[in-house]
Amino acid sequence: MEETWATLGVDLHLDTAVGEAAAAPGTGVRKGLTDALREAVRGGRLAPGTRLPSSRSLAVDLGIARNTVADAYADLVAEGWLTARQGSGTRVADRPVPSPVKPPVSRARKSTGPAYNLMPGTPDLASFPRTEWLKAARRALAAAPNEAFGYGDPRGRVELRTALADYLSRARGVHADPDRIVICSGFAHGLMLLGAVLRGRGVRDIAVESYGLDAHWGILSRAGLRTTPLERDELGTHTGELGGGGARFKAALLTPAHQFPMGVPLHPDRRAEAVDWARRTGGLILEDDYDGEFRYDRQPVGALQGLDPDHVVYLGTASKSLAPGLRLGWMVLPPRLVPEVLEEKGGSDWACGAMDQLTLAEFLTSGAYDRHVRGARLRYRRRRDQLVAALAERAPEVRASGIAAGLHAVLRLPPGTERSVVQAASWQRLAVQGVSHFRHPRATVPDFDALVVGYGTPADHAWAGALEALCRALP
Amino acid sequence: MEETWATLGVDLHLDTAVGEAAAAPGTGVRKGLTDALREAVRGGRLAPGTRLPSSRSLAVDLGIARNTVADAYADLVAEGWLTARQGSGTRVADRPVPSPVKPPVSRARKSTGPAYNLMPGTPDLASFPRTEWLKAARRALAAAPNEAFGYGDPRGRVELRTALADYLSRARGVHADPDRIVICSGFAHGLMLLGAVLRGRGVRDIAVESYGLDAHWGILSRAGLRTTPLERDELGTHTGELGGGGARFKAALLTPAHQFPMGVPLHPDRRAEAVDWARRTGGLILEDDYDGEFRYDRQPVGALQGLDPDHVVYLGTASKSLAPGLRLGWMVLPPRLVPEVLEEKGGSDWACGAMDQLTLAEFLTSGAYDRHVRGARLRYRRRRDQLVAALAERAPEVRASGIAAGLHAVLRLPPGTERSVVQAASWQRLAVQGVSHFRHPRATVPDFDALVVGYGTPADHAWAGALEALCRALP
Repeated sequence: MEETWATLGVDLHLDTAVGEAAAAPGTGVRKGLTDALREAVRGGRLAPGTRLPSSRSLAVDLGIARNTVADAYADLVAEGWLTARQGSGTRVADRPVPSPVKPPVSRARKSTGPAYNLMPGTPDLASFPRTEWLKAARRALAAAPNEAFGYGDPRGRVELRTALADYLSRARGVHADPDRIVICSGFAHGLMLLGAVLRGRGVRDIAVESYGLDAHWGILSRAGLRTTPLERDELGTHTGELGGGGARFKAALLTPAHQFPMGVPLHPDRRAEAVDWARRTGGLILEDDYDGEFRYDRQPVGALQGLDPDHVVYLGTASKSLAPGLRLGWMVLPPRLVPEVLEEKGGSDWACGAMDQLTLAEFLTSGAYDRHVRGARLRYRRRRDQLVAALAERAPEVRASGIAAGLHAVLRLPPGTERSVVQAASWQRLAVQGVSHFRHPRATVPDFDALVVGYGTPADHAWAGALEALCRALP
Repeated sequence: MEETWATLGVDLHLDTAVGEAAAAPGTGVRKGLTDALREAVRGGRLAPGTRLPSSRSLAVDLGIARNTVADAYADLVAEGWLTARQGSGTRVADRPVPSPVKPPVSRARKSTGPAYNLMPGTPDLASFPRTEWLKAARRALAAAPNEAFGYGDPRGRVELRTALADYLSRARGVHADPDRIVICSGFAHGLMLLGAVLRGRGVRDIAVESYGLDAHWGILSRAGLRTTPLERDELGTHTGELGGGGARFKAALLTPAHQFPMGVPLHPDRRAEAVDWARRTGGLILEDDYDGEFRYDRQPVGALQGLDPDHVVYLGTASKSLAPGLRLGWMVLPPRLVPEVLEEKGGSDWACGAMDQLTLAEFLTSGAYDRHVRGARLRYRRRRDQLVAALAERAPEVRASGIAAGLHAVLRLPPGTERSVVQAASWQRLAVQGVSHFRHPRATVPDFDALVVGYGTPADHAWAGALEALCRALP
């Protein structure tokens, strides 16, 4: 009978006062229990149709006589709150009660949203490999030691760190070692930790790129760091400025492999300049390698970290290669930084769930990750090609740049037209962002007009429509 | 052929300089590629036995002639770095290369650890319902909308918040609403967020209990809050002190349902005092309801939050009911606090993975959670009874208290013996903690000697041995 209670998902809390009455001897017990149950039904805490535990089971749980429970049930059946039918037990009567649950907000939002989405920063969520992920989860759960379910190593699961060390070394040229890898809840969490560590070291300024993500600048600001944009030209960010004016910077956040949003790799000379600065001054480079897996026409640009693992923190993420919803990222740290980052993380793994870490480790080591990335790469490359072809035909004056890699392209627009094109896009029910959105408020580089088109974002079925809407919005 | 490359999990990064040479016309290409591959094998980045992509596939990927790749492969086969066999393609030769991966640290640790573990704070990890969890994950993944894989609502998934509002209202008497629930990476993450919010409001001091977890005090300290212990007596924590000395406190962290580690509920008078203080002064109570699901002999103590949802933050966790490794907790917040907590969380859900949130939502709504908790409750109660019986027989002078609920008991020891008993336990290869470990450094309540025995911690097969070791260690 106890099983019945259990399997029906009824685990009912009754108010303390009522409980005390119920626990006291005499007539108060029946009344206390009756009142408590009535209140639970009236308030919607017990939903219509809910099957109550058997009187015996509830009596055991409350430490009272079985008859008392049976009497209370009978009272409430008589009052119409409960129903009792042969063979189906005692249930909450089917009467309208105010539901405590409001309709989810996201639904309401959805219906008013745009029809097409070319906002950068998100991969095609519809292509998340659900079946493969679940298979990996099954294997990972079956193989996991019991301790995996406990409080974890602050660096994250060793299985994932080992798999990542192998993968990052092989695919991104990173000097990796499981002991120097720290798993985090995506890039943002890693940046939060590093911001706090830098601030703790007395750093007050961090160099960033003239164009980037305000969310990242915001995270650094909240950590107490002032972000200062570096100039840029056709070779990429002016890393020579890092040491200018008396080595004013102690740290820099860069996207060397594929500048976000410009889409170009940092020129080898600039890479060398950055590493020279870091080595000379003890500075720290935070390398945001957000989409290093996706390059199409040419040899991939290796991680900057490979040039100097002692002065570069490599930050990678599953957000572009798999899905942001996983909240999984990783840092490869210079050895001296590991203890401080772990201290900041809280001394235990307070952050990252073990399940997804183990699953990603299995995904990597089984080859499913490579398969998925390669498939995604082919699909994104095809979209990129279609975008370029459509532009050549429909908007020949719009030049696409930053298209050799990644999930987005920069579409240069005639001067002064960015705002009107974004507006025209919204009339086409297309969400797309102008490049000015990514400009640092204190950037001094020349302004220009462009769209940042996240061609990786739509689901396959929505891609053609999104591209058509984009072409219509362009001048 | 491209599929071959993909399915073999080879996604190889070659150094930029080499890549440039490889991309340049003429003889440099072959040499550049040969050098890069040789270096990858020598450095261990390509492990022995790894199957290389076909020459055609690699040629496409690098944008070079197929013959160039075939020549480079041939060179390396000649040098002994690669092997080529009919039907099995080109592979890395089976020769010893230095492995970049060190053996995992945790293994080494394990072998020197104690044989038995009665440390409090962790449920029986061996009883994690792997099969049921995986079933729920399958259903959740199948039902998830694509947007679930994207960047999320900072409050967490609406499915989980809705399921929790229902559950907490029903089982813990919490006044919950999905809009006021914020999912966090376990209790610790919630406390980090709340600590930062309080500090941002100018709060400098927070009242805590005389006995508690130093990890929690540490989190509050890192947020810039000074923790001050409240006195306690047989009715529990002296909440009357909260308003003493000119309403010195603005916030308090309490474990009302089951004081940790004492194991007693806060007396109703003290609950009322706490809520009165909060209401009178606008103070905030952080209610740590870490193991509210587990009570055995009597009516459960409802959440304090039910008395005043506007001045109490309810904090719950899956760490005791399921597993700490999930890193899932939840806060039910007073409405005025929601925006500040979300701002602190980063304005998006940077923290919690969607998969486990969706799975837990499914686990709750399908009734699997109630089933699991009920099963665990029966098992823990049995252990509790066995502990009490063993003490009565083997160590009659040791009194167990705080045994009506939870996963741990406090064993009072003769004065001055705590340290020697903990030492005796370690000789029995039993890990157990003395109560002094949980005493706040500035506590002024009378000291006493006791063990805090986490009888929920061992796996079933280890429980009898752990209990035996404990009895041997007791005076």
